[in-house]
Amino acid sequence: MNGLRATLARIATTDKRAEAAARARQAVLTKPAGSLGDLEELSIRIAGIQGRADPCVDPGVIFVMAGDHGVCAEGVSAYPSDVTAEMVINFTRGGAAINVLGRQAGARVVVADVGVAYDFEASLPIYHKKIAGGTRNMAVERAMTREEAVRSLEAGIEVFEAEMAASSFGISATGDMGIGNTTASTAMASAFLGLSVRALVGRGTGIGDEALDRKIGVIEKALALHRPDPADPIGVLSMVGGYEIGALSGVILASAAHHVPVLIDGYISGAAALIAKALSPLSADYMIGAHLSGDSGHGLMLENLGLKPLLRLGMRLGEGTGAALAMILCSSACRLLNEMATFESAGVSVKQ
Amino acid sequence: MNGLRATLARIATTDKRAEAAARARQAVLTKPAGSLGDLEELSIRIAGIQGRADPCVDPGVIFVMAGDHGVCAEGVSAYPSDVTAEMVINFTRGGAAINVLGRQAGARVVVADVGVAYDFEASLPIYHKKIAGGTRNMAVERAMTREEAVRSLEAGIEVFEAEMAASSFGISATGDMGIGNTTASTAMASAFLGLSVRALVGRGTGIGDEALDRKIGVIEKALALHRPDPADPIGVLSMVGGYEIGALSGVILASAAHHVPVLIDGYISGAAALIAKALSPLSADYMIGAHLSGDSGHGLMLENLGLKPLLRLGMRLGEGTGAALAMILCSSACRLLNEMATFESAGVSVKQ
Repeated sequence: MNGLRATLARIATTDKRAEAAARARQAVLTKPAGSLGDLEELSIRIAGIQGRADPCVDPGVIFVMAGDHGVCAEGVSAYPSDVTAEMVINFTRGGAAINVLGRQAGARVVVADVGVAYDFEASLPIYHKKIAGGTRNMAVERAMTREEAVRSLEAGIEVFEAEMAASSFGISATGDMGIGNTTASTAMASAFLGLSVRALVGRGTGIGDEALDRKIGVIEKALALHRPDPADPIGVLSMVGGYEIGALSGVILASAAHHVPVLIDGYISGAAALIAKALSPLSADYMIGAHLSGDSGHGLMLENLGLKPLLRLGMRLGEGTGAALAMILCSSACRLLNEMATFESAGVSVKQ
Repeated sequence: MNGLRATLARIATTDKRAEAAARARQAVLTKPAGSLGDLEELSIRIAGIQGRADPCVDPGVIFVMAGDHGVCAEGVSAYPSDVTAEMVINFTRGGAAINVLGRQAGARVVVADVGVAYDFEASLPIYHKKIAGGTRNMAVERAMTREEAVRSLEAGIEVFEAEMAASSFGISATGDMGIGNTTASTAMASAFLGLSVRALVGRGTGIGDEALDRKIGVIEKALALHRPDPADPIGVLSMVGGYEIGALSGVILASAAHHVPVLIDGYISGAAALIAKALSPLSADYMIGAHLSGDSGHGLMLENLGLKPLLRLGMRLGEGTGAALAMILCSSACRLLNEMATFESAGVSVKQ
């Protein structure tokens, strides 16, 4: 637990002086005050996170964590578990949505196996951090042990720090791949938010009415069986979570520890952020809400996290796709702050 | 009126076959159906507009049309009219917000003077298409003659076609610069939507309560004086419009005539789109709503145009800044359609 403990200890408040300097610069750029809307506040937040008045997020890194879910045995997903491994291979070949958007954003897409039910070739260009070949079925037993939950968090921290050591970056983004992980995320959100499963559940990759009822029943059964305590986030993760979700929580905590803004993608990343915030309330100051997912219940998670999403495009793919688009907007916000002329430098008249 | 008449005659329906082909491809890409949300429908619309199943919007061109407004004599704006010319010069030096976002989007920023109250050097790298040095004060007389209104539309068409002849592009965007032009736009929107000035008016570049009341009074006075008829869009433009607004309508109509998708920026561009739609209802099929402006009343304009905005960031700067960001999303939509692997090519299992 050393890696996790050290990371939590390192998370500090953001830099108010850098924020104030960025805010002062926004006021003298050649535009009416406030006319860049949410991009102005975004640039100021990133300045505070990075501790510099001229923040820069380029390049970014998108961390896609992959794992399988034993609860798929209950028939909660529209796709077979095999798809998790097949998509990991698709990621390495550049054919997935996140590869396309990562290329557009000029970001590195980093993939890690933390719990996929498939033995990848050791030569596959991913981080090999498998904790187990999928979680156990939460409807009948704990998804993982407490020790495995901690290991999943530390796997995320390790991947983040290895990537940072390889080459620096200015922003991180969370992405997930794991058939069945909206089921785990809904159970986690219900535990943290104290809301009913029905208020939070969605159709994931696109299940019908019958499967949706089954999914709700399975999650309710798991919650009744384990009674997860929101004051014990490691307990929640181990009872009803997923390895890739824990690893994403680790990525978020490591981002906060290293003063890197972290874009929270969609529904699964939201569940990971709930764990991170429960372990370190300060970590929420480093999070940026990427988008409002098409999955119902996501808005309630964002509200609990205190995040306002940058995009509302009805996306519900995961992989970090919403975060990749939002990363481009974060870059816009920083570029505007850094590159725009001031009223004085451009010789433009000020407000009457 | 030849340029306008020829342009209107050239506007045809979008290509339903290309749309169907793009829709079919979306269904076999490695993602759950519909999980890319609005980006899927966006790619299909662009396919229909361009008449190809593999649409491409790169590079784009942002058309920033500039003009001054005689109605500024009534004290309706927070900034002096001088700022219009000063900002045109700022555009040519690369220091304005639209320059920063244009660079990020990989788009050309094209500026035209169609009615600025300043004599620019002939060597300034802009399109010199001045119709007059600002409109007349709509509160006491027609803003321009009918002939000048037509010339402003044709100026936009000419700039579009000159730019296309210089180098091809895949998408266009509207941008405005003109102190006082939210006053003109509100008057135009009130005429077309049949709604009260108070329901549509905003604070523009940031006027206080007293100036807002004055602005409302001035617009109401102009509307009572001219009684613009929404069935006569050239009449509306000439009575209460602006040269840069007419030129933007021309850019929109030329885009439709040349099968180029056109991003409608904010409040002023919305007024230009109302003119374009009134002159050619088919032109609306070529418009893409870039963003919902922070200016109140803009949502009502978009509703009337049948456009759903891609972004809601509370921006209210104009210049095409919201459209530049939305251009990046249009590129995302096309790249995803063209570059993603299919279930078959990637060997990924399909839905159960």
